[in-house]
Amino acid sequence: MNRNVETFIGCDSAYEDAGIVLFGAPFDSTTSFRPGARFGSAAIRHESFGLETYSPYQDRDLADISVFDCGDLELCFGSAEAALKDIEEKAGEILQDGKMPFLVGGEHLVTLGAVRAVIEKYPDLHIIHFDAHADLRDDYLGAKLSHACVIRRCQELTGDGRIHQFCIRSGEKAEFEFAKAHTDMHKFSFEGLEDLTEKLAREQVPVYLTVDLDCLDPALFCGTGTPEAGGVSFTELLNAILTVSKLNIVGADVNELAPMLDASGASTAAACKIVREMLLALYQ
Amino acid sequence: MNRNVETFIGCDSAYEDAGIVLFGAPFDSTTSFRPGARFGSAAIRHESFGLETYSPYQDRDLADISVFDCGDLELCFGSAEAALKDIEEKAGEILQDGKMPFLVGGEHLVTLGAVRAVIEKYPDLHIIHFDAHADLRDDYLGAKLSHACVIRRCQELTGDGRIHQFCIRSGEKAEFEFAKAHTDMHKFSFEGLEDLTEKLAREQVPVYLTVDLDCLDPALFCGTGTPEAGGVSFTELLNAILTVSKLNIVGADVNELAPMLDASGASTAAACKIVREMLLALYQ
Amino acid sequence: MNRNVETFIGCDSAYEDAGIVLFGAPFDSTTSFRPGARFGSAAIRHESFGLETYSPYQDRDLADISVFDCGDLELCFGSAEAALKDIEEKAGEILQDGKMPFLVGGEHLVTLGAVRAVIEKYPDLHIIHFDAHADLRDDYLGAKLSHACVIRRCQELTGDGRIHQFCIRSGEKAEFEFAKAHTDMHKFSFEGLEDLTEKLAREQVPVYLTVDLDCLDPALFCGTGTPEAGGVSFTELLNAILTVSKLNIVGADVNELAPMLDASGASTAAACKIVREMLLALYQ
Amino acid sequence: MNRNVETFIGCDSAYEDAGIVLFGAPFDSTTSFRPGARFGSAAIRHESFGLETYSPYQDRDLADISVFDCGDLELCFGSAEAALKDIEEKAGEILQDGKMPFLVGGEHLVTLGAVRAVIEKYPDLHIIHFDAHADLRDDYLGAKLSHACVIRRCQELTGDGRIHQFCIRSGEKAEFEFAKAHTDMHKFSFEGLEDLTEKLAREQVPVYLTVDLDCLDPALFCGTGTPEAGGVSFTELLNAILTVSKLNIVGADVNELAPMLDASGASTAAACKIVREMLLALYQ
Amino acid sequence: MNRNVETFIGCDSAYEDAGIVLFGAPFDSTTSFRPGARFGSAAIRHESFGLETYSPYQDRDLADISVFDCGDLELCFGSAEAALKDIEEKAGEILQDGKMPFLVGGEHLVTLGAVRAVIEKYPDLHIIHFDAHADLRDDYLGAKLSHACVIRRCQELTGDGRIHQFCIRSGEKAEFEFAKAHTDMHKFSFEGLEDLTEKLAREQVPVYLTVDLDCLDPALFCGTGTPEAGGVSFTELLNAILTVSKLNIVGADVNELAPMLDASGASTAAACKIVREMLLALYQ
Amino acid sequence: MNRNVETFIGCDSAYEDAGIVLFGAPFDSTTSFRPGARFGSAAIRHESFGLETYSPYQDRDLADISVFDCGDLELCFGSAEAALKDIEEKAGEILQDGKMPFLVGGEHLVTLGAVRAVIEKYPDLHIIHFDAHADLRDDYLGAKLSHACVIRRCQELTGDGRIHQFCIRSGEKAEFEFAKAHTDMHKFSFEGLEDLTEKLAREQVPVYLTVDLDCLDPALFCGTGTPEAGGVSFTELLNAILTVSKLNIVGADVNELAPMLDASGASTAAACKIVREMLLALYQ
Repeated sequence: MNRNVETFIGCDSAYEDAGIVLFGAPFDSTTSFRPGARFGSAAIRHESFGLETYSPYQDRDLADISVFDCGDLELCFGSAEAALKDIEEKAGEILQDGKMPFLVGGEHLVTLGAVRAVIEKYPDLHIIHFDAHADLRDDYLGAKLSHACVIRRCQELTGDGRIHQFCIRSGEKAEFEFAKAHTDMHKFSFEGLEDLTEKLAREQVPVYLTVDLDCLDPALFCGTGTPEAGGVSFTELLNAILTVSKLNIVGADVNELAPMLDASGASTAAACKIVREMLLALYQ
Repeated sequence: MNRNVETFIGCDSAYEDAGIVLFGAPFDSTTSFRPGARFGSAAIRHESFGLETYSPYQDRDLADISVFDCGDLELCFGSAEAALKDIEEKAGEILQDGKMPFLVGGEHLVTLGAVRAVIEKYPDLHIIHFDAHADLRDDYLGAKLSHACVIRRCQELTGDGRIHQFCIRSGEKAEFEFAKAHTDMHKFSFEGLEDLTEKLAREQVPVYLTVDLDCLDPALFCGTGTPEAGGVSFTELLNAILTVSKLNIVGADVNELAPMLDASGASTAAACKIVREMLLALYQ
Repeated sequence: MNRNVETFIGCDSAYEDAGIVLFGAPFDSTTSFRPGARFGSAAIRHESFGLETYSPYQDRDLADISVFDCGDLELCFGSAEAALKDIEEKAGEILQDGKMPFLVGGEHLVTLGAVRAVIEKYPDLHIIHFDAHADLRDDYLGAKLSHACVIRRCQELTGDGRIHQFCIRSGEKAEFEFAKAHTDMHKFSFEGLEDLTEKLAREQVPVYLTVDLDCLDPALFCGTGTPEAGGVSFTELLNAILTVSKLNIVGADVNELAPMLDASGASTAAACKIVREMLLALYQ
Repeated sequence: MNRNVETFIGCDSAYEDAGIVLFGAPFDSTTSFRPGARFGSAAIRHESFGLETYSPYQDRDLADISVFDCGDLELCFGSAEAALKDIEEKAGEILQDGKMPFLVGGEHLVTLGAVRAVIEKYPDLHIIHFDAHADLRDDYLGAKLSHACVIRRCQELTGDGRIHQFCIRSGEKAEFEFAKAHTDMHKFSFEGLEDLTEKLAREQVPVYLTVDLDCLDPALFCGTGTPEAGGVSFTELLNAILTVSKLNIVGADVNELAPMLDASGASTAAACKIVREMLLALYQ
Repeated sequence: MNRNVETFIGCDSAYEDAGIVLFGAPFDSTTSFRPGARFGSAAIRHESFGLETYSPYQDRDLADISVFDCGDLELCFGSAEAALKDIEEKAGEILQDGKMPFLVGGEHLVTLGAVRAVIEKYPDLHIIHFDAHADLRDDYLGAKLSHACVIRRCQELTGDGRIHQFCIRSGEKAEFEFAKAHTDMHKFSFEGLEDLTEKLAREQVPVYLTVDLDCLDPALFCGTGTPEAGGVSFTELLNAILTVSKLNIVGADVNELAPMLDASGASTAAACKIVREMLLALYQ
Repeated sequence: MNRNVETFIGCDSAYEDAGIVLFGAPFDSTTSFRPGARFGSAAIRHESFGLETYSPYQDRDLADISVFDCGDLELCFGSAEAALKDIEEKAGEILQDGKMPFLVGGEHLVTLGAVRAVIEKYPDLHIIHFDAHADLRDDYLGAKLSHACVIRRCQELTGDGRIHQFCIRSGEKAEFEFAKAHTDMHKFSFEGLEDLTEKLAREQVPVYLTVDLDCLDPALFCGTGTPEAGGVSFTELLNAILTVSKLNIVGADVNELAPMLDASGASTAAACKIVREMLLALYQ
């Protein structure tokens, strides 16, 4: 008789064979408004069974690729630094084994842990960032490690011009000014993504993709801590993912689903579908 | 003093005068993910009182047409075959009286009961099918009578090329392959519907229209068991209904509202509006 | 130690300096379907702290304008006339002090209180009305003071041709007929708004803007008593607000958020954002 | 084919044979805190199908008694006086036909309509009142017709000493003082009910029973506008009903279920059970 | 790197060492009112992580006993007989290996599958049944295999006088009459349980314990399809479990948690606690 | 025109006159299971308007005592130490002004901030602790500052025998062992509280009262992160508060309401009532 193994649907490859390793970071201690993103990764795994493994968009099937799901990390609430260290370590281990880390949050701060590990291996890393929020504050109520500062911290690692932000529609005035000087910000939509992709593809640089699901319009995706009206549609996000899949993606994450906030389950179902499409598109 | 009669708003014609007979099939026993469609028909009837009888889209009023609402069937949970038999019988009775059966589900399997009755009277029946899901599995965990197999069972009745599917964006790989060989499937949208309508209108064939409300995007319609991001808008569905209303529609259904899953009531309100527009458009 | 002052975010100007005065009217006694709009103004104030004061759409910041928030009126439930009198009085006081009243409902009937005060000062007032519903009934179950009659009552004050309705997609047949004779109704969308704005700008007339948030599609905004599928998007509403901001707006309101109906908080967040954009756009 | 008749379970007697006539008053316009009681009567009727007609507590079955359910009145929101008049008229008609009116609210104010009709026929009426709240205010924000004043208005009809209040645990200080002078108030529990029943039984006076369901502890019954911790249990309320059933009950009501506030359905189920037990106990 | 194994908290023994084997039966196809019990077993497993492994009631710890959790069966919706066969098979396998099957539902019908396997091994089986409902119907709308008939079906296996029912407070009149003739029914409470336990202990008979969680009062446990006011408290149920633990319990189940119906999570938490206490009490 | 001041109902004394100062600590970063307690203090303040200022239990009125409500602290999420420092500072300021600090959480960890300030002034402090959970862990996943460790941290400040715990029904085995050696723990109920009160009253020691609302049974109070079945009733908690009010209470807190988890509002209403009764009982 077997133990009860739970994975994201279709992600039951042996570790050795896997090209992508999915892992969850159930952490949301720095969330300043509505918490609950800590339950995101478990909900995505659990509810993925309402999904098919086959994508009619890509005509590809999770059954035909090899992904390993190692479950959720056990992270310490109340200490952002300790949580980031654990995430970094896990991502590092996956990279060392020659596989792509695919992180499922949790709040957006968890990205920093993965980026630290990835940039260690790929110092010339670019980051593509889909989000409603700029996340470029220097600190939030005194804290440097906050979901509202995560891209600012990443920028300190990559340097100027290596972070490409899309769909941004919320932030302090100062964040938008910072972006003008230090990042490549595209407001409101994915305009410019195709051109950027062509350019980065030519340069053959390694790219990390971070998807804050609140880039989606709250119409479709209200299960998130800080919903911002005026976002992109599922089809737009899907197309953006397919676009960047032509790049050399060396790490990726999806974050900010707070499943309890959308009791209908539609936000979680949308997140599951985004994860499926990303896995299929990024698998090489 | 009168008993408490409840009907869909404006559907208070005498049976003899009615051109359309609305009836509910509160059944969802084969639903494999989130149940609750059993409460769909009662919710649509009950919440229709938040709606006007007049449609500014069609400039027509339910007060000007004759519809009879005979309420919900009392169906046996746990036996799909028994439930289908009761539905078939009721639809048959309505057809025999020269009226159009208008079935409100319930899960999508209930369509099979109505189609059995309609095809008995109209052996050259075509089916137009709006849905997120292909519903073309041969069986689901061994069961032949399942919501996931309903169009496959219908195809066995109509034969090849008589089933026209629109908006489909989910299914197993095998279902999409089956569709290539046996049905007329249009993925993701209503593309092709106008051409099809012209063709079927010329051929003057009888048509059954089955609307799985999850063809709508979950943004608008999250109150359904298996929400699939990437669906059509209300306006697109409305236009599709107006398009096919030029055909000889001999039976129709609306299904898969699970009202409890959308506590805001917006999904139920949308379903009520779709029912009103269908009644106004299909009434002849 | 200070008392606990709560305002809409960034609306902490001194009264003397304020150009706009925001006040709430927590009233929904005449709501005929789902009540709860009484909680709208408090929720908008309370949840505004999830919002930034800066608008990337307008590149303006609430920190740079002067708005005073005097909280919610204490209104009597069960007596529409008494509630309207209190609203009229407060709006009158604000107008007398040379400031713009900005009313947050509550149900749509509250508009009548503000309009009474504004038209007293500006007898040649025009009203621009964004709504899903015509609100042109003469009475509702015998009541003349009802949310379903509010624009009819306003029309009695302004006379013919002075009320400009947009996005209307629900009402009795008789309301649409009334509109043909007495108001300037634009069904379903904002089509015609640019032309109207140009014309009214040339005429330099004073304008009152009333925004029933249910003009938005329930996909984004399900937290309202009578959701009507087929509405406008956030971006469309935002653009409409920016368009009319070129006019001489002398009073405005936002109403019909029923926050409890959307447990995700997305409707309240959208309402907060609309209020921020209106304040920034209408401030002169 | 029959129309869709909906009644409280088992209440399908012919009007002529009925000893009790159940009718709903879906009104909550004066509710000052959380509205929703307007949906109480319809929910009780609709959800009663989850109940058995047989009571193991009384060993009696609704199938053995004759009750007629004439559905809900169509009441005007926004005018308490108009609503009360309609309720009084309906109750009067039932009384004239020699049957007992059994009113299902709605907010507690609806009781006043029924009591006006009953006291017209039985001028020596006593009222037994189960409630968390005293409901003895003279006015509420200026309104004399408010849920918070309903027993005060009844006291003006009956005079002193004829109103017997139980379970009361909330009110202004002034209400408790009024009670000392004018009503027979028993705080917190049903203590004293047996003695009172014996006394009233000896005197053979006609009695009206009004049950505000918020007398129940919110543990069991949170689906009400103003839940007050510290209430009685279901068993205590059931026993109280059985106790007073020995009296000459000439009218009764149940009110203040706000079904949307308890999404689990447990409050509505409890209300249905109380209605069943009251019908069985009061039927003579 | 390890796969993601999920078990009920503390149930991570090796299969060989285990004295109890926990397995889930996510089935609710015959539920006639509110479905959702299918999600019960997964929710109990998932939410058990909010629980401690130590019980201060028994001063015992799950860490000190050996339980194996083999996860949920994959059952066919829409066919009760197929589902029961799968459950019977799994329970039989566990019994054959000399371990106690501990089944977590699902709806109450799943008990029949386990009882069929247990009675095969222990033909002189007694059943102790805690429930709000008698579950003694001969059929439900024609179906013999229904949650409302499960104890009737069990009685056909055990014969008269071997089924001991407690807390029963709902059913048709005919069910209560059947009970008088064929089962040992104790209405409303656990009265009589201590005496019964002493008697059965003396007789050293094998006993199956089936706990329908709706025996609990809906105050504590509203997350169930058919809540029945007037139930027992957590402490009373706990004491009842401790009482019967002195018997030779050879199989047990817990069922009828429908987690989605109680969004607070309190019902699921209570169910987890009952499972922990049962495992600790029944482990020998 | 006045700014919008919001206080707990009836707590509108001038600061100088106040005997008690109420302040909120909206912090829940270390919550390990369901977060949301951060919204507790604002919800209690906001929803208190559904409450009367008069208590029939104590025959006292908030209008007759002087309490100042200074609102919520703005605390940094993600850093427990920073948050505790801010709470300690505010409590210290209140104590220095000769008033009693009355803290409303937030998660239970906030107590440590207040206790640090109180013990500074009263080194011989005793703590009376009502809670479902022992909160005596030495660390939680490595963190010393966690809701699960708060009483352990307090014990390090008071020393042995000065902490008196009641209603405890959950914890690790090691916590119960720690309690035997170092605290005065009373499991499951308030048994022993009267004796303790008499003893401490004789000794005239200063006492801090900390009420984790999850000591209440989840039947009444499900709006909390970790509901534990088997708790005390409202009446029992009220009586316990009245009992300890005879002591020299020098500081107090109420915590762990997570209002979003109980959408009915009943948990928040219960918390408001507990706060009212505590203010009335502890005011000297």
